[in-house]
Amino acid sequence: MDMNFDLAQSLEVLARTPSTFRALLSGLSDEWIAADEGPNTFTPFDNLGHLIHGERADWMTRARLIVAQGDVRRFEQYDRTAQDRESRGKTLAMLLDEFETLRAENLEELRALNLCARELSLEGEHPAFGTVTLRQLLATWVVHDLGHIAQTSRVMAKQYREAVGPWRKYLPVLDR
Amino acid sequence: MDMNFDLAQSLEVLARTPSTFRALLSGLSDEWIAADEGPNTFTPFDNLGHLIHGERADWMTRARLIVAQGDVRRFEQYDRTAQDRESRGKTLAMLLDEFETLRAENLEELRALNLCARELSLEGEHPAFGTVTLRQLLATWVVHDLGHIAQTSRVMAKQYREAVGPWRKYLPVLDR
Repeated sequence: MDMNFDLAQSLEVLARTPSTFRALLSGLSDEWIAADEGPNTFTPFDNLGHLIHGERADWMTRARLIVAQGDVRRFEQYDRTAQDRESRGKTLAMLLDEFETLRAENLEELRALNLCARELSLEGEHPAFGTVTLRQLLATWVVHDLGHIAQTSRVMAKQYREAVGPWRKYLPVLDR
Repeated sequence: MDMNFDLAQSLEVLARTPSTFRALLSGLSDEWIAADEGPNTFTPFDNLGHLIHGERADWMTRARLIVAQGDVRRFEQYDRTAQDRESRGKTLAMLLDEFETLRAENLEELRALNLCARELSLEGEHPAFGTVTLRQLLATWVVHDLGHIAQTSRVMAKQYREAVGPWRKYLPVLDR
């Protein structure tokens, strides 16, 4: 079932995520944007802020560290709550623009690296589970994007968990 | 946590789904579009075909039946495999256009009904679980859209289940 990692195909997905979030969320009522799945869960707004923090602090920062193969190959711990600070006072429209700009810059840098198979096999060190390759990092970037699209849709769907009445048992997204 | 059903807020989501699918899928490699989660599971292409069939045969057909309050208020059984026939020979681009057109027509009809609270409480009969209201039908339409956005993203994400290596345990979307 699985596809092999392919850089060009990964870039296809990574390049589309900002427009997907824009299509899904832009102009929606605040109630959708601020909806959550209970205490300490991400709203659609949080999902977007979290992706923005990844653009600043995670994916390309780690990719650079691996490609450089310097003395330090251990990644910094990723901050899963950074968006609580960084999104404060911003509108959804601002976040959508910010994500689009940062992602475009990061993909420009990634493309310019012209990574070959040998470089994709270079290793870094994850603070929790040790040795990982650049290929695994980039595959994770793709899956992480898709996971947050799925999560954002699911959070929204759950707002109508009671409203759908008896249809609930046909809608597995409501109980994930 | 739940939001109450609101027609205007539901229309916001329903109106965005075609653009979300376009942003997510348009121009992707065939391998993404034809990816699945194993035997008898939907590909992204199937998800889109399934939504198109719903535009033709399900949501507004059932809504009309409820609003009419005629002798027959029992819905036809929904065909979950209709897209196997109806999408045959079509390209993804054709499906994206078709979905956009049908959805726009259906929402135009829905808006023109000018449904009030009394009408939203009118009842129809679901072939499997009996009495349902128009309000529940429309809430289900919204959740169904969001569920298929989530499903499409998840199917794509799973193609890199092996490629992410040790990150898998941080990516719950891969094991849903």
